[in-house]
Amino acid sequence: MMKLILVAAALISLLSPSREPNLYEKSRAALIERVGSALESPVSLPAPCDGGGGPVHETHKANYMLISDLAKAWQLTGDRKYSDRLRAMLIAYADMYPGLGYHPIVLSNTPGRLFWQTLNECVWLVHVAPAYQSIRSTLSEADRNHIDNDLIRPMAEFAMQGTPDNRANLATFNSIHNHGTWAVAAVGLAGFALGDDSLVEKALYGTDLSGSNGGFLQQMDELFSPDGYYTEGAYYQRYAIWPFFLFASALDKERPQLKIFERRDGILLKSVDALIQMSYKGMLLPFNDAVAKDLTAQELICAIDIAYSANPSRKDLLSIVRDYHDRVLLTEQGLKVAKDLAAGKARPYEFRSVLLSDGADGSQGGYAILRSPGGAALGFKATSQGMGHGHFDRLSLIYCDNGNEILSDYGSARFVNVDEKYHGHYTPENKSYAKQTIAHNTLVVDGVSHYKASAGKAGATHAEILAFNTADPSFQYVGGCEKSAYKDVTLTRWTALAETDFLQYPILLDLMIADSRKPHVYDLPFHYNGHMISLTVPYNRALDRMEPAGENFGYQHLWLEASASAAPGSTSFTWMTGDRMYSLSSATDPGTEILMLRTGANDPSFHLRSEPVLVLRRKSQGRAVFASCIETHGIYDNSTEQSANLVHSCSGVKVLSDDDSLLKVEYIFAGGQSLRLVLDKKASTLSIDR
Amino acid sequence: MMKLILVAAALISLLSPSREPNLYEKSRAALIERVGSALESPVSLPAPCDGGGGPVHETHKANYMLISDLAKAWQLTGDRKYSDRLRAMLIAYADMYPGLGYHPIVLSNTPGRLFWQTLNECVWLVHVAPAYQSIRSTLSEADRNHIDNDLIRPMAEFAMQGTPDNRANLATFNSIHNHGTWAVAAVGLAGFALGDDSLVEKALYGTDLSGSNGGFLQQMDELFSPDGYYTEGAYYQRYAIWPFFLFASALDKERPQLKIFERRDGILLKSVDALIQMSYKGMLLPFNDAVAKDLTAQELICAIDIAYSANPSRKDLLSIVRDYHDRVLLTEQGLKVAKDLAAGKARPYEFRSVLLSDGADGSQGGYAILRSPGGAALGFKATSQGMGHGHFDRLSLIYCDNGNEILSDYGSARFVNVDEKYHGHYTPENKSYAKQTIAHNTLVVDGVSHYKASAGKAGATHAEILAFNTADPSFQYVGGCEKSAYKDVTLTRWTALAETDFLQYPILLDLMIADSRKPHVYDLPFHYNGHMISLTVPYNRALDRMEPAGENFGYQHLWLEASASAAPGSTSFTWMTGDRMYSLSSATDPGTEILMLRTGANDPSFHLRSEPVLVLRRKSQGRAVFASCIETHGIYDNSTEQSANLVHSCSGVKVLSDDDSLLKVEYIFAGGQSLRLVLDKKASTLSIDR
Repeated sequence: MMKLILVAAALISLLSPSREPNLYEKSRAALIERVGSALESPVSLPAPCDGGGGPVHETHKANYMLISDLAKAWQLTGDRKYSDRLRAMLIAYADMYPGLGYHPIVLSNTPGRLFWQTLNECVWLVHVAPAYQSIRSTLSEADRNHIDNDLIRPMAEFAMQGTPDNRANLATFNSIHNHGTWAVAAVGLAGFALGDDSLVEKALYGTDLSGSNGGFLQQMDELFSPDGYYTEGAYYQRYAIWPFFLFASALDKERPQLKIFERRDGILLKSVDALIQMSYKGMLLPFNDAVAKDLTAQELICAIDIAYSANPSRKDLLSIVRDYHDRVLLTEQGLKVAKDLAAGKARPYEFRSVLLSDGADGSQGGYAILRSPGGAALGFKATSQGMGHGHFDRLSLIYCDNGNEILSDYGSARFVNVDEKYHGHYTPENKSYAKQTIAHNTLVVDGVSHYKASAGKAGATHAEILAFNTADPSFQYVGGCEKSAYKDVTLTRWTALAETDFLQYPILLDLMIADSRKPHVYDLPFHYNGHMISLTVPYNRALDRMEPAGENFGYQHLWLEASASAAPGSTSFTWMTGDRMYSLSSATDPGTEILMLRTGANDPSFHLRSEPVLVLRRKSQGRAVFASCIETHGIYDNSTEQSANLVHSCSGVKVLSDDDSLLKVEYIFAGGQSLRLVLDKKASTLSIDR
Repeated sequence: MMKLILVAAALISLLSPSREPNLYEKSRAALIERVGSALESPVSLPAPCDGGGGPVHETHKANYMLISDLAKAWQLTGDRKYSDRLRAMLIAYADMYPGLGYHPIVLSNTPGRLFWQTLNECVWLVHVAPAYQSIRSTLSEADRNHIDNDLIRPMAEFAMQGTPDNRANLATFNSIHNHGTWAVAAVGLAGFALGDDSLVEKALYGTDLSGSNGGFLQQMDELFSPDGYYTEGAYYQRYAIWPFFLFASALDKERPQLKIFERRDGILLKSVDALIQMSYKGMLLPFNDAVAKDLTAQELICAIDIAYSANPSRKDLLSIVRDYHDRVLLTEQGLKVAKDLAAGKARPYEFRSVLLSDGADGSQGGYAILRSPGGAALGFKATSQGMGHGHFDRLSLIYCDNGNEILSDYGSARFVNVDEKYHGHYTPENKSYAKQTIAHNTLVVDGVSHYKASAGKAGATHAEILAFNTADPSFQYVGGCEKSAYKDVTLTRWTALAETDFLQYPILLDLMIADSRKPHVYDLPFHYNGHMISLTVPYNRALDRMEPAGENFGYQHLWLEASASAAPGSTSFTWMTGDRMYSLSSATDPGTEILMLRTGANDPSFHLRSEPVLVLRRKSQGRAVFASCIETHGIYDNSTEQSANLVHSCSGVKVLSDDDSLLKVEYIFAGGQSLRLVLDKKASTLSIDR
């Protein structure tokens, strides 16, 4: 019987939450294996020569990761083989570094020595300095002096102020920008490694030590809005939180009196939260300069582990770890995450409709996300420009449903780390296409991008959120406006997700309004991600000759695939994505032109992906209202070849009235159903009559 | 203590294989729920009016599925509410059917009455007849007579011989073709339902009862090769096995003396096996007229359950059910599958390198699949034409790796069931593009498709397999030839998957040889599925004007995106798919042109997907050897932004000698490594020197 009890106990333990493989143990085992196989090869320090993704660049990147791994392995096991190799690598770098001039690839105004830009060198130092710190006391004085004085200190000094030939790094170090965060984190962590408080002070308060001309604390205060939104958008927020959390974690230990995780009401935790909210099915919404990134990114593994450890009441963060991470940090923080996860403490993370204000004081517009109960998500951008990585896309939308981007954002034109594609850097088409307004789901006036695509002018302003109302989950809306993108045109947009009792899925209702006293041509693009199914008016497809849709502001990159005159009343366009249909219906008149375009023109080096876009073009004597809806409908079951509801329901969209106070729009559906949308301009409210 | 023992027993049962949810119970519960919600709506029998995917078409399809479900629910529960509704639906159809003329949509030469083609009507009857059979004896004589004489019998007669106005159905019924199989299965199952042996006899032996002018048995004998390959290819094999298995299953019960599952050494089981082997990661290789289909297709659920039940030694079929199916048949066969699966009897299914002969006697070439130990799969097509759904693609390749198609086959130009896309039928571009040779990874001579795209001429011949050798898993190859596609050109192709100790992944080695005594222009297309990364020679991209690559044989549908002159020696082209790179390196000279094309020209209704293709074009006085390799290399880890080995290794491909007996090709790689491929033409062997 005793045996049976033991069997029962063993089975109970198998079924208990701790049966879940302990993520810490798994991470530790992976580290030991990874480091073990790295130890089989000799130290490799090739001379710097190539860009991101090039073999030498990647070798030095792999080296900093190995250095960091070796320190962890040494701390976890006490085995000298790890610290010996760590020492050997640091000595080798200390031998090499003083002899390096500027990197031969000239693409950056802050060139590095080990890498093509100082930024990568700072990333290197952020990881190497703590590793060095972990073994420094075990080294001989000679080794210590060599590594201190020929590697860590000069690298920190270089990151802080560059060389007499080029002081651009000094401006970066003191800047309120993610490059600045990497620089101060690198210098601060080097300060901790060297035991040099002056470096730490400069990292915290800027080189003038005033705290108001740069430094980590000012960056924390100014780069995030009170809601934790980082002004460059989700993609760079992901990148920036890495040095924020690594340096903050060190400060929490070395300078506990700073109470760094409590600063600004816990702004760093808020920033992690904001980032998670800006994801759809794990994918970060790809606005501004962005390439596909999701919640599995290494930066989020780092930030979430540290954030949870600093705020262990946030059990919902554990479910992000469980659902997206295959490892934890090999620190006390990661151990806590793994233990609590294994103990079954995870709580569901609630993806909500949220408005994330932009600007240090939250006054520079914001990024809104509406989520329908059924799981669709809408991103609405009415932020500031987002600095150099910002796009000219005020009031642009991203719409996701059923696991797919439905209205997509091109993100950036870049092949990160692919040396053969413009050295992995932003390609020229990032500026000439991806940043331009036509590359986004928002209004273009007279074929010219917002702010004439001048980052300087755009950076001086921001869009505004007029309303954000999610009190009724079945009718949520957001409104925004942009007054300065064009000299004499004000843009206003109201977008809602509404549920009805006659449509299969929530419907997106969209009012884009251009106000002007002068005649203009208005283009409203819809970057539909899918295959064109039908248009309710005849169209002319380019058959044996195709030309670009324009000459500049991104139009030069778009082949004109087809064009049509819209119908009187309204026009509907259907595309298929995954196993569902999506239909855009818009109030149109025969003067409305419909253009169907595709990226790829004037792209000599195949830098652009081939993607379609539908544009509604309207000439107006001044004001124009684009009243549209996007229905989700239909199911296509490929296993049984059963389909249903493949034809859109909306048969009419009509602006009923439009005066100083009210704008009323009616949507008519099959079976005589209808919706009325009323915008009260003075009250800044949108209401629906279903 | 007793309690503890019970707990232990419960835990043991939880951990035992039967803890796996019983798929039969799950399927049964889903059926009861599905039927329950259907019973809430009244019977709907709209007048026939639309094509595949149209709401009325889909309603009648849903009705046959419901009728079949109702019969199952009645058999499983004995609840009269199911049989009452089943009766009501059959009566309603019996009321309607005699009044139906030909369907208003005229697209088929065998139009139906309930559906736009008789084929769909046969599918309807295949499912309805057994359902009727299950309740017929419980009905009043009046009901029975009405359903017998106004629905089942006239529908069977119509399927068998059409109407006096149109006897095309008679030819179909007696044909050796999947439409014939649906027709005989429908008539045979109607015969069983009505207790009318004469219908069953005609279904088995053709209307003349000779057995040599049509009928199910002749279809079994002639549509499959001895290896179980169905001559139309994987997509239609999936479709055809449905009536084969449904009728065979009924025959097994009603005419056990036929020993139908033993016929031709178990040809039906072989056909299921062949079909599974023609899949990659569950996806059926999409050659000939095909749209995306995988092992989850309803036809495979049916066929595998019946095949396993008839051959329960094939425990490996259970793992296909486990990995791909979310339900089983609600029959004794499905119950057996579910029980054995729950009892842990599944064994791994071995995806092998296989050669599937084509032709009733296996003499009409074959379809070869090579699989590397690492999981890449290569399809090599040297079959007969495959009847009306065959493409003009002798010796074409499909190459899959890492979960993606790498060299892709367009499949068919069709949006199944999407009424708005040409009524869900094959679009005109299926003939003008998808079937043409240029749409495939094989040689085009003088811009003309194989057999000038004449199905009649192509149907009279077949390609040949010259060799198939997989004895050495690290060097597997297949060779094939095609002598009749062009009047004066013989095509020969040898393709191998080889492992080396210096490349990261297996390499595809490919020799495409054209033999002629006359000058020709040879085009060898590679339909790469991914984004173009680099070409080792300068190229001219169409910047502000794009035109088609030709005027006919599919070239009219390809935009000429870029062109280049190849390098002396060899030229390499790299694309990225998923997180890996693929590089095609070919022996070239400056006379070799490289064309980069994209589908979409002369496609007035957006029927074609936008996909890229690279073409090697060579003018020759006669013979031409295209010696190429495709390397798989690199890793791009998006979570850590680490990449490695992104640049191809092959730096040269050279034909060393080419005489009557031997063709020697050398491939040179970075680091001075090389491979030599020797084709012994007389022995029909390929060997490698690594």
